[in-house]
Amino acid sequence: MKLWGGRMSKPTDQLVHQLNASFPFDVRLYREDILGSQAWARALAEAGVISTAESKILVEGLDKILHEFQAGDFEAVESDEDIHTAVERRLTEIIGPLAGKLHSGRSRNDQVATDFRLWIINACEQLEQATTYLCQAMLENAERDLHTPMPGYTHLQHAQVVTWGHWLLSHAWPLIRDRERLANAQTSAAVLPLGSGALAGTSFPIDRAALAKDLGFAEVTQNSIDAVADRDFALDFLYACSVLNVHLSRMADTLILFNTPEFGFIEIDDAYATGSSLMPQKKNPDPLELARGKSGRLIGNLTGLLATLKGLPSAYDKDLQEDKEPVFDSYDTLSLLLPVLTGLIQTLTLHPQRMRERLSADLFATDLADYLVGKGVPFREAHALVGQAVRLAIKNQTSLKELALDEYRSISEHFEADVADIFDINASLNRKGASGGTSESALKMQLKAAQKALR
Amino acid sequence: MKLWGGRMSKPTDQLVHQLNASFPFDVRLYREDILGSQAWARALAEAGVISTAESKILVEGLDKILHEFQAGDFEAVESDEDIHTAVERRLTEIIGPLAGKLHSGRSRNDQVATDFRLWIINACEQLEQATTYLCQAMLENAERDLHTPMPGYTHLQHAQVVTWGHWLLSHAWPLIRDRERLANAQTSAAVLPLGSGALAGTSFPIDRAALAKDLGFAEVTQNSIDAVADRDFALDFLYACSVLNVHLSRMADTLILFNTPEFGFIEIDDAYATGSSLMPQKKNPDPLELARGKSGRLIGNLTGLLATLKGLPSAYDKDLQEDKEPVFDSYDTLSLLLPVLTGLIQTLTLHPQRMRERLSADLFATDLADYLVGKGVPFREAHALVGQAVRLAIKNQTSLKELALDEYRSISEHFEADVADIFDINASLNRKGASGGTSESALKMQLKAAQKALR
Amino acid sequence: MKLWGGRMSKPTDQLVHQLNASFPFDVRLYREDILGSQAWARALAEAGVISTAESKILVEGLDKILHEFQAGDFEAVESDEDIHTAVERRLTEIIGPLAGKLHSGRSRNDQVATDFRLWIINACEQLEQATTYLCQAMLENAERDLHTPMPGYTHLQHAQVVTWGHWLLSHAWPLIRDRERLANAQTSAAVLPLGSGALAGTSFPIDRAALAKDLGFAEVTQNSIDAVADRDFALDFLYACSVLNVHLSRMADTLILFNTPEFGFIEIDDAYATGSSLMPQKKNPDPLELARGKSGRLIGNLTGLLATLKGLPSAYDKDLQEDKEPVFDSYDTLSLLLPVLTGLIQTLTLHPQRMRERLSADLFATDLADYLVGKGVPFREAHALVGQAVRLAIKNQTSLKELALDEYRSISEHFEADVADIFDINASLNRKGASGGTSESALKMQLKAAQKALR
Amino acid sequence: MKLWGGRMSKPTDQLVHQLNASFPFDVRLYREDILGSQAWARALAEAGVISTAESKILVEGLDKILHEFQAGDFEAVESDEDIHTAVERRLTEIIGPLAGKLHSGRSRNDQVATDFRLWIINACEQLEQATTYLCQAMLENAERDLHTPMPGYTHLQHAQVVTWGHWLLSHAWPLIRDRERLANAQTSAAVLPLGSGALAGTSFPIDRAALAKDLGFAEVTQNSIDAVADRDFALDFLYACSVLNVHLSRMADTLILFNTPEFGFIEIDDAYATGSSLMPQKKNPDPLELARGKSGRLIGNLTGLLATLKGLPSAYDKDLQEDKEPVFDSYDTLSLLLPVLTGLIQTLTLHPQRMRERLSADLFATDLADYLVGKGVPFREAHALVGQAVRLAIKNQTSLKELALDEYRSISEHFEADVADIFDINASLNRKGASGGTSESALKMQLKAAQKALR
Repeated sequence: MKLWGGRMSKPTDQLVHQLNASFPFDVRLYREDILGSQAWARALAEAGVISTAESKILVEGLDKILHEFQAGDFEAVESDEDIHTAVERRLTEIIGPLAGKLHSGRSRNDQVATDFRLWIINACEQLEQATTYLCQAMLENAERDLHTPMPGYTHLQHAQVVTWGHWLLSHAWPLIRDRERLANAQTSAAVLPLGSGALAGTSFPIDRAALAKDLGFAEVTQNSIDAVADRDFALDFLYACSVLNVHLSRMADTLILFNTPEFGFIEIDDAYATGSSLMPQKKNPDPLELARGKSGRLIGNLTGLLATLKGLPSAYDKDLQEDKEPVFDSYDTLSLLLPVLTGLIQTLTLHPQRMRERLSADLFATDLADYLVGKGVPFREAHALVGQAVRLAIKNQTSLKELALDEYRSISEHFEADVADIFDINASLNRKGASGGTSESALKMQLKAAQKALR
Repeated sequence: MKLWGGRMSKPTDQLVHQLNASFPFDVRLYREDILGSQAWARALAEAGVISTAESKILVEGLDKILHEFQAGDFEAVESDEDIHTAVERRLTEIIGPLAGKLHSGRSRNDQVATDFRLWIINACEQLEQATTYLCQAMLENAERDLHTPMPGYTHLQHAQVVTWGHWLLSHAWPLIRDRERLANAQTSAAVLPLGSGALAGTSFPIDRAALAKDLGFAEVTQNSIDAVADRDFALDFLYACSVLNVHLSRMADTLILFNTPEFGFIEIDDAYATGSSLMPQKKNPDPLELARGKSGRLIGNLTGLLATLKGLPSAYDKDLQEDKEPVFDSYDTLSLLLPVLTGLIQTLTLHPQRMRERLSADLFATDLADYLVGKGVPFREAHALVGQAVRLAIKNQTSLKELALDEYRSISEHFEADVADIFDINASLNRKGASGGTSESALKMQLKAAQKALR
Repeated sequence: MKLWGGRMSKPTDQLVHQLNASFPFDVRLYREDILGSQAWARALAEAGVISTAESKILVEGLDKILHEFQAGDFEAVESDEDIHTAVERRLTEIIGPLAGKLHSGRSRNDQVATDFRLWIINACEQLEQATTYLCQAMLENAERDLHTPMPGYTHLQHAQVVTWGHWLLSHAWPLIRDRERLANAQTSAAVLPLGSGALAGTSFPIDRAALAKDLGFAEVTQNSIDAVADRDFALDFLYACSVLNVHLSRMADTLILFNTPEFGFIEIDDAYATGSSLMPQKKNPDPLELARGKSGRLIGNLTGLLATLKGLPSAYDKDLQEDKEPVFDSYDTLSLLLPVLTGLIQTLTLHPQRMRERLSADLFATDLADYLVGKGVPFREAHALVGQAVRLAIKNQTSLKELALDEYRSISEHFEADVADIFDINASLNRKGASGGTSESALKMQLKAAQKALR
Repeated sequence: MKLWGGRMSKPTDQLVHQLNASFPFDVRLYREDILGSQAWARALAEAGVISTAESKILVEGLDKILHEFQAGDFEAVESDEDIHTAVERRLTEIIGPLAGKLHSGRSRNDQVATDFRLWIINACEQLEQATTYLCQAMLENAERDLHTPMPGYTHLQHAQVVTWGHWLLSHAWPLIRDRERLANAQTSAAVLPLGSGALAGTSFPIDRAALAKDLGFAEVTQNSIDAVADRDFALDFLYACSVLNVHLSRMADTLILFNTPEFGFIEIDDAYATGSSLMPQKKNPDPLELARGKSGRLIGNLTGLLATLKGLPSAYDKDLQEDKEPVFDSYDTLSLLLPVLTGLIQTLTLHPQRMRERLSADLFATDLADYLVGKGVPFREAHALVGQAVRLAIKNQTSLKELALDEYRSISEHFEADVADIFDINASLNRKGASGGTSESALKMQLKAAQKALR
């Protein structure tokens, strides 16, 4: 059964049918399609287009189909070109010609937009939840080693001392922002297009506000052409997913690095690593690599839909059918990645001793300059003086910490005996006392703020 | 003058300097850089790092530089590798070594993030304003021909009757949503990173909350590593710009179509068209084509930055310098496109007669089916019956409107004499009375809602 | 069975297994995997690592598995993490521990690269063939109406007279170039990585040149690290597919336009159109819209893999597993699109009369200017004079053709009585006699050149 | 002066002019535009459209303009909307109305395509040369330490022993392939569109084959519509640039890693590093980070143009003007990056001792398995046995190398006294004797092959 065809003089070419058919992927919308149809049946009755009794039969028939899907019993047939056709076909089989009344005043154009929005509303919730779980695992891990010192890097060079907790939290905040982006996508999606017909609106006196309420939408679309043409919500969803995965890729990339034998800061649990078919000793951080690699895929999904929408003529065009697969794929990718990373973080072993061993004296060079500032030297001059000390240390094959006081004083008389205190790790951490810094109290405040943001 | 180099044993290679230098493009941040430095000087004095008198000299010196930039008098020198270096160099020339105190406790990492966020906050405001102006022009145009009938298309085929006002408003709503996306980007940007140092925080007791207030930021960043690594606000901006331009591309594509001699629905004012070097008769809709074509460019800007950020290690890496040019380019593109399209819409000539001539009887086929529904025929059956009528009309080389009543009745006895009333344009428009539809009252409500949304 | 794990102290987490597993998609490589393994077995025997008898048993066991796959009898088990594991597991079931010798000196890293290259070599051939068929359909169609005049457009405005054949051929040439791009991708793929081990080469004296010959590769890779890291061939394939689909999108976009009632130049066969669930009269050009829309998807596939590869560390990283799905998807998309478009072109109905009716006098304006050039007027002046004639015609609500001679002469005395001849359609077409132009002979030459290029 | 406008009733809006104008960027095509015009002047004379004397005056006038540009003396005026207009305007100033004859039978559509192709032909040559220089520097560096052992990584974990020369060559081969891609782009570009007019061909009897020869093109375009619509050559160029930069990003990413204090394999020369404004000790590998980061930008350039071209109607549309800026930007980026990386590689210091220290016993695990294969153990079993040895070593906090023979024999009796020989570095390298492997002779052959490929 097709929902059209009366006007055609011959059947659709088989390959065309295959190209057009979206059932293989939009079957995922079965729940949303049925809920939407049930609400529509009620609205048609409200509007007097069908009787209440008819509405009840329609709703019950649809319930039966829902159960078939949930039980895995739904049997698709060749001609089911999309989920809407499949449901209407099956409904006809169950309740007879009355099924033909369901589509009154409705088009697949507004129907699919409704289904898809409902699906995305739920997808945003799921991903937000999974992101929250990952954040919680990160916060718990960060709390355990909130003040454990480690080298801080910029340009992957030793910069200043930071702590493990500080570092790990620096990757939680982006995810906290991602929850906002998912919430924005959800808001975009929560506007009901149903009742917009093919593009011109519906001929029946449907109360769209009531329909929105029935289906859990916050608002109704204001223009029937825009209602069937708009895919902003899908873009917003793909964008939120892309940025989220880019954030994961940055954390993953650095964890992969920390996991090399050369760094040796962390060790991944055996349950989260894989081996090699050839090299018996290998223990590979595959989940982290996939977290990094899949961000490319999600960028591609976003780019693809933007390019598909670009230059598209007004209203509904079949090109819009290309919206679903990238959305499903981005969702599936993150739905698997997020819990895997949650487990990986929860089972991660730290090597604090190794981190501490890597705390080179170089990391205190800025503290040295700040020390000179404390002695009244303008920062720019202090910077240059410490630069000279660095060169001297390199030349003498020693370190800033091992330079003798008179060597320091040969560079500037502002260096005094207390210069040795500069290389104390905790003192250095605690000097960064402004909000967002590495001092004990700043870190505790930061952790609390992050915990609060997740609530 | 470089802000570093004490530690190096030889000068930078000339090509490396050229590759690294961002001054040619980040000079655009001069205002933000100076405002940020002035606030920092005040904060250093607040914190007791410098005296109030020193702070005053710094602020006044910076004022002088601001005026030099505004007057076009600022003279860059070869060694100005970025705007920060240029300003500090010039400040040293003006006020002497005291300038060297300004950079205390600050890094270019937190400085550039601050400058760039300030710039984007303002850019969002400018684009939101320009988008509003365009929307207003569209609303005014739509109001003039709110009820002027024209063919509505899906798949670029005749679908149902709509009106010009309805059609034009369908392109205003996406832009209204874009204003939200710009506002979201602005919120993302309005978080102050200053006081995060290179990555570990600042050693001086800076009151970052006060600093945020001074500079007009809503909040401060909570983690100093994230503060220098985060470019979400730039992505949010590029994303908002991309979607906005994709929306413009869809409207432009359809206007280009309506402007063909075959459609002939509109005519572009001579001031908004261009000619051909070879073909004397040509009047080309170049601004519309550029609105369409440039959306590719903006998609590229977004994709590019996403790819740059993907897999980047923690904290600051030089790769982040690649954030500015796409942002400036997307801004400049829209800053020019939006007012041009505003003018084009304001001066557009409609050809309502031409639109009316194109209202084929086909456009009423759904009304016919709805008519049968009114007679008690289930919609699916009604759809098939009208499909037969369409085929009959094609076979008889006539139209649905010209089919005789007995021809209709040969298809179904539900057709009666009143079938002729179906082809009345206004009646058809008014039947779509639900919100978002084409009826007179629905259109008036829609226009009001759009006006309200723009306020 | 896993091909690794001896070194691990606990099993892989279930979700990690699911994330890592590539069997659901790389099972498509079964044929290539088995052929590669058979060649490897022969090579191991050649190298004396195993006996000829052992090699024979391996090859026959693999043959059995190949038949199982081809017959749809292969039964995967949960632990089959990829096609390589599945095949080795099954081989062990069939021939016992001897199967364990097959992986000597080989890694999944060089194995998968080999499988994938073999697959792409074949995919290029398939797509090249399908592209050729489409081109042939276009050439046949173009030949039928090689000289049928129609308006030529630039900026979608009437520019000059062209012919249908000329227009359709203008979309065949890009496809002919695409065949080159596919051939380039095939050449990229036809370099054998097998024998590179995990990254360092193989410890056994394998004759890789002979192995390449056995498997039909043109060359062997020259560096074992590059051999397992290189995915250029996948990029080349995705790029060729993207550009091909962009070309299809341009043809499709214009055909959709020509198919509107306003243009009415063509009509799509009922077998290649679809209808509407709501609007009984609709006949939508869905295949053309999908040809246009899917180009976004293919651009996304390319962008995604480029982003995945960007910044990836040397040698093999798990991120590389993300190479297959976009390649399979781009192939499947085009494998369906190309034959559908071939059928659509073969069954397309032209309306030459409609095209002829649309030949406005404006289309001859350049001919008019060239006429003046023939009278000795510099082209730039001629262009301006004809521009005046156009304005005069607009002002007088007439056309260039209908302007009286004295009106022409009021603009320039170079216009003479023979100006009327300019508006002859065939004369205009035939004036463009240089190669690539619209004259009868030029078009015939072009058609021949295209036919030759396809051979 | 505009090249059109006779037909318009009012001047172009100022912002529209600014939006449309391409002179700010296409002025880069001045040389190509002038060479193209000179060839066209000669062709017009050949065709009898102008006299030989006129042609000579045109060519000489154009020569004068070329010199003005080269001397930096060319003065643009506000109305120069593109390079073609600017040159024709200036030519008119120099030689008077005769300049107006130059544009006979030519359009800016075929002219700009010709200019741009000429520019890209040259750009390919420049980039190919710069890539070759970089490769040569890499080969020279690789030759110096062809056999210097270092850990080989997969998944950034220790895999097997390789050598520095082998590693560096693994990044040269991709660049060698990039030269092919650039050559393909050059071939794409080397087809002459001139003589195609606006879209329909030229009315004058131009010998296009002779014109192609005059300008150094290999062929002429075969269809005048395709000739003005085709931008495949620009895509091919952008694609070649993207892949090249992705290759650079992978090498750069790993060099950044090798440059961390934790790895310490290499040291970048001071002339190729930069410092920090805050941290006096910093020596940052900025050029490598930019090589990595800019690959995002180049991916964006490619994606952007693909999206711009997607769905574009036939023939010339103004959207095509968006082709130039991404091409110029990708060229400029690589023109700077390639020589910088060449210098960086030439001045790189290796720390072979550090690499040697990092050669853990784990790297020989595959050799151990191969050893067992040599004793007749099927590889899969050997792999599992060595896996047990790895676990035993971890448990005993020792290494594979330090495990006692009886510990080995407790795992398998196939281990014998000669197992100790397995951990010899050179022996391990030399075992990989097949082509592309790490043995001395294989590496020498590889180097020779690479040198040959560059010739």
